[in-house]
Amino acid sequence: MYTIGIDLGGTNIVVGLCDGDLRILHTLKVKTGKRRSPDEIVSDMARLTLEMMRSCSLSHEEVGCIGIATPGIVDLESGAVRYSCNLPFKDYPLKEIFSSLIPDIPIRVINDADAAALAESLVGAAKGTRSSVTLTLGTGVGSGIIIDGRILGGGAGFSGAELGHTVIKAGGRRCACGRYGCLEVYASATGLKNSTRECMARLRKSGTHSKLFEIAEKYGRISARVPFMAMREGDRHGAILVEHYIDYLAVGIANIINLFSPEVIIIGGGVSGEGEHLILPLTRRVAEELGSDGSEINVKITTATLGSKSGVVGAAGVGRIPV
Amino acid sequence: MYTIGIDLGGTNIVVGLCDGDLRILHTLKVKTGKRRSPDEIVSDMARLTLEMMRSCSLSHEEVGCIGIATPGIVDLESGAVRYSCNLPFKDYPLKEIFSSLIPDIPIRVINDADAAALAESLVGAAKGTRSSVTLTLGTGVGSGIIIDGRILGGGAGFSGAELGHTVIKAGGRRCACGRYGCLEVYASATGLKNSTRECMARLRKSGTHSKLFEIAEKYGRISARVPFMAMREGDRHGAILVEHYIDYLAVGIANIINLFSPEVIIIGGGVSGEGEHLILPLTRRVAEELGSDGSEINVKITTATLGSKSGVVGAAGVGRIPV
Repeated sequence: MYTIGIDLGGTNIVVGLCDGDLRILHTLKVKTGKRRSPDEIVSDMARLTLEMMRSCSLSHEEVGCIGIATPGIVDLESGAVRYSCNLPFKDYPLKEIFSSLIPDIPIRVINDADAAALAESLVGAAKGTRSSVTLTLGTGVGSGIIIDGRILGGGAGFSGAELGHTVIKAGGRRCACGRYGCLEVYASATGLKNSTRECMARLRKSGTHSKLFEIAEKYGRISARVPFMAMREGDRHGAILVEHYIDYLAVGIANIINLFSPEVIIIGGGVSGEGEHLILPLTRRVAEELGSDGSEINVKITTATLGSKSGVVGAAGVGRIPV
Repeated sequence: MYTIGIDLGGTNIVVGLCDGDLRILHTLKVKTGKRRSPDEIVSDMARLTLEMMRSCSLSHEEVGCIGIATPGIVDLESGAVRYSCNLPFKDYPLKEIFSSLIPDIPIRVINDADAAALAESLVGAAKGTRSSVTLTLGTGVGSGIIIDGRILGGGAGFSGAELGHTVIKAGGRRCACGRYGCLEVYASATGLKNSTRECMARLRKSGTHSKLFEIAEKYGRISARVPFMAMREGDRHGAILVEHYIDYLAVGIANIINLFSPEVIIIGGGVSGEGEHLILPLTRRVAEELGSDGSEINVKITTATLGSKSGVVGAAGVGRIPV
């Protein structure tokens, strides 16, 4: 049986056809488009889905489920999107509208961070485990929590446990959500980028040299990669920026372990591209944070394996788990 | 059908007989006793249980389940206690040993903070809800999380999500667990007591008068009640201590809401005795923390209703939920 996963993002809509092992066989992509109505977006998703089925000569009976991964707060049972920052959804009955366009295939809607976590859990870095937490470190900090093979969705039936918006430093930096000291402010790629910018401003003021300047100039911008690259070239300021970044991330991950004791913690998003330069010191810091006695922690911390495919794969896999 | 709940504490063992509505019909109590072996403790629990059944003329067939609430990390499936701070359990097969003494009645073992949460969920302040979080503010911060009528037990099948040991102020005060800035350091009764002691030392040094001194002297000790009483008598320092305490507790509760969006948050333990003097400002602060737009939060914050009975009632109720 085939399944179709739709990754609905702020920039693109990607429709992917998956086989029974959640391997992506074929994808179609279209721009989401700015200033479009929810109905126009859903109509595009349905059109692309039908186009995919036609081009692959698939009958409706051969598609077991269509899953849609969307940003925002999703009501898992009704498939409605309560609210989304990045798309014009507000109490929008996404599943109902989509079902009216493709009525004869079961539809499921899932939050995009949950989809990424589910994908890693089913066929990625957490394959074979019962419990895992996936953090996506990008513009913000996305989080998906799998416990006993199910998505932890919050009590009211809504998906999306917001680890990024738990305060880890009361009275700290202001977050976009209005709180002070959220994990997201410190552990997102944006957080590291902002720290780097502030550090460079201080260095410039005091006339101190640093490789941060050369690297930022070479790549034309200040990004979260700049301090990592500077560190690898032996720059002290880059190393300190990375160290502080990892310190905060370790606090957040130690909190996750004390809350959920997952078997695996998976790091995705832009920052995860640093690979072992991130994972090794991070694992060490988490062990220090939790084991004052130096004992080893019983949790594997690793990078995501599915990358940009996780939305499609997670959406395609959502039919495999209970609501 | 009757059930028996055993509340195993560091000080007392309480065995309670409950009816089908989890009302306690009869209890027996014995000191846990210091320096006793696990086997001696279990033998006492079984003896008391059989004594209770005899005195109530109950046959084994009339008891549907015996639940044991214990401090420490519990393996819900096997009923073993992995580790406990307050009792001499280390990878101890509690259920197995107890079952060997009373072989013909189903036995379940549950963490004590989870038992308190379950009790409130079944017949207390969260009755009729699907999801609730119970915080017990005492020597430490105990936490029990009920989601969709089940105890959130951590991925490895162990009970006890440790909200008290999540860091809310990175680099803050040292916690007994070794981390810096845990919720427990700020939100436990012990935390407030310590802040009060520090405040009084500063006031004494500067020769500043405060009702804190009179009240502490009257009651013969500095406790978490002292600043609340001073506040109610118009003392500025008492009011500031309470305000800071509630600020931190509100940060922790806002984190809980962003993680689990429960329907009810229940405050138990010594500090909950302050009632509305705690709950009203706390609810206001949580709303400020989460709703920068001033919108109301969709969560009820309230005090526990079962008090010291929650261990027995939760233990007696554990047979009603799936493992």
